[in-house]
Amino acid sequence: MTMDALRRSGAWGGVVEAFRERLALPAGAPTITLLEGNTPLIPAPTIGDRVGADVHLKFEGMNPTGSFKDRGMCVAVSGAVASGSKVIVCASTGNTSASAAAYAARAGLRCGVVIPEGQIALGKLAQALIHGASVIPVEGNFDDALGIVRELAETGEATLVNSVNPLRIEGQKTVAFEVVEQLGGVPPDIHCLPVGNAGNITAAWLGYTEALEVYGVDRRPAMWGAQAAGAAPIVRGERVERPQTIATAIRIGNPASWDGAVAARDSSGGTIEAVTDAEILDAYRLLASVEGVFCEPASAAGVALLLNKAAAGEVPPGATVVVTLTGHGLKDPDRVVQEIELPASVRAELDAVAPRLGL
Amino acid sequence: MTMDALRRSGAWGGVVEAFRERLALPAGAPTITLLEGNTPLIPAPTIGDRVGADVHLKFEGMNPTGSFKDRGMCVAVSGAVASGSKVIVCASTGNTSASAAAYAARAGLRCGVVIPEGQIALGKLAQALIHGASVIPVEGNFDDALGIVRELAETGEATLVNSVNPLRIEGQKTVAFEVVEQLGGVPPDIHCLPVGNAGNITAAWLGYTEALEVYGVDRRPAMWGAQAAGAAPIVRGERVERPQTIATAIRIGNPASWDGAVAARDSSGGTIEAVTDAEILDAYRLLASVEGVFCEPASAAGVALLLNKAAAGEVPPGATVVVTLTGHGLKDPDRVVQEIELPASVRAELDAVAPRLGL
Repeated sequence: MTMDALRRSGAWGGVVEAFRERLALPAGAPTITLLEGNTPLIPAPTIGDRVGADVHLKFEGMNPTGSFKDRGMCVAVSGAVASGSKVIVCASTGNTSASAAAYAARAGLRCGVVIPEGQIALGKLAQALIHGASVIPVEGNFDDALGIVRELAETGEATLVNSVNPLRIEGQKTVAFEVVEQLGGVPPDIHCLPVGNAGNITAAWLGYTEALEVYGVDRRPAMWGAQAAGAAPIVRGERVERPQTIATAIRIGNPASWDGAVAARDSSGGTIEAVTDAEILDAYRLLASVEGVFCEPASAAGVALLLNKAAAGEVPPGATVVVTLTGHGLKDPDRVVQEIELPASVRAELDAVAPRLGL
Repeated sequence: MTMDALRRSGAWGGVVEAFRERLALPAGAPTITLLEGNTPLIPAPTIGDRVGADVHLKFEGMNPTGSFKDRGMCVAVSGAVASGSKVIVCASTGNTSASAAAYAARAGLRCGVVIPEGQIALGKLAQALIHGASVIPVEGNFDDALGIVRELAETGEATLVNSVNPLRIEGQKTVAFEVVEQLGGVPPDIHCLPVGNAGNITAAWLGYTEALEVYGVDRRPAMWGAQAAGAAPIVRGERVERPQTIATAIRIGNPASWDGAVAARDSSGGTIEAVTDAEILDAYRLLASVEGVFCEPASAAGVALLLNKAAAGEVPPGATVVVTLTGHGLKDPDRVVQEIELPASVRAELDAVAPRLGL
């Protein structure tokens, strides 16, 4: 059943129901869903004017747990149930653990989140914990945590749901199907997005490639990926041992889907470039203050790149550009509090308050 | 254009576009939208089994700013633009200010948020500030703040967007239209929701009443409203001078839409009852851990009431019940951190980690 057919029936049933025939799920896999997907494609007219293009924001922060991870996680968890798993596991301190925990709760599975001890903010793990995941800090670093979840999966008693699980990419590719449908059956000219672990650019490119057949479109967009300057292994062509950026969701020194990102870039005639933290934060504030869209800092990296490319005269005039905003701004409350300050008080009188509003 | 027709066209255009003919907007009012509305109606099978009914969660936390306020704010701001206003104002420290600020940014209006000084957590105002609102603390209490925004509106130079603006209720009523459509053209038997300022129950009841004509349905649900026990003026029949509850979004001692709530209750054969903070938090954790849905504490009040009614044998077996979840859990990060704790570390070895997962 296509997304359009479901829309006609008056109910969106989530990613697995909408796109099952295009997902590599075993026959008979259940539909585990929180009604993720079908996220809005929000026009960005002010940014569009600034860059001389027709810009749209694919706001993946409007998935149930607040990030694009839900789009792949629902498929991975549906697959885990089909395989008879009672436990899913991942190594993650961020959006992946939140999504895994929510879908495990939904499916009645146990969820294990293995993390390196120390340096872990409780706020980052709050969603996983409230959804009932077993969060397990281990004595070691992130590689040790990832090693343990791989070992757990190898016992056959747990399913690994980090992005090395191919069903994650399968689910994430559906963002391209939705964009093509939302643009009225055509792909954009350019698709901008943040690149961290690089599953997202890999998946979107896969989706656009499949869209050639599914929607009978005759071309694919150029993929423009943005890495944070302090965490830009693909741009630099080498691992980054100590990645640094305020955009925590893309603070990755050795992306799991490195090859996929390079293939997407090269096959599409696209680019992967670095943007500074200052550029990311400028784009983050711009999105909130002129378009009314509040996203995670990492999410703003794609807009930062688009603004840089426009400044360099490299955005084709009138091009249709889609920018993925990967997570909701509410995901990173600490960052926003650092970006703002509360103005001073005034008397509770009209003549004191009105001037603050230019009245 | 109905929601179904828009779904057929492949694009959801937000509340004003979908329901314009049913909203009291002036002719020619623009469509200000962040593609709010069309929120998922998520089945809650585990809670349904527990109460012996067919339970669905209308997850309004999946609006762009994370709460149901967007549904009315888009209409109020569209109306403000139509009236020639350049400034909108509200008195709010919470979800209303976040929504007002986002839609003002979207519309290119200035937004003034007037609040009583002191006791204001920066986190609660973060969204309003990042969206560029002018937040103005005044020397005084909440009534003083509300008095000032009323005075500002009376000058004719600003539009008040607190819930006394009738376009707010107009927009919020559309939740009932969506529920009827999502249930396949029939209303639920019971609609549960939290009651704070009482605009929501008033609006939902108005929507169900209009649905009699719009969708040709022949009945309306019983409206079951939940107030926090420490902030239950309607249940007690008198103002509460110092309302107390962890459910901050419904910590209201003198609801603006008191009469509307009583009318909805009585006309529908419904009820408005108190639930304790402990019951609210139990429901909050239950929603996250068995249904995979993370909402604000206040949002869980409707589920808490439903569980109480079931325990009293007052839920008709097999009834179709819709419960509004008014906001996303990410709206209240402090609460979730209070509800959880990080377990102790273990060695990074399979034999230490596996037992934590029951393996």
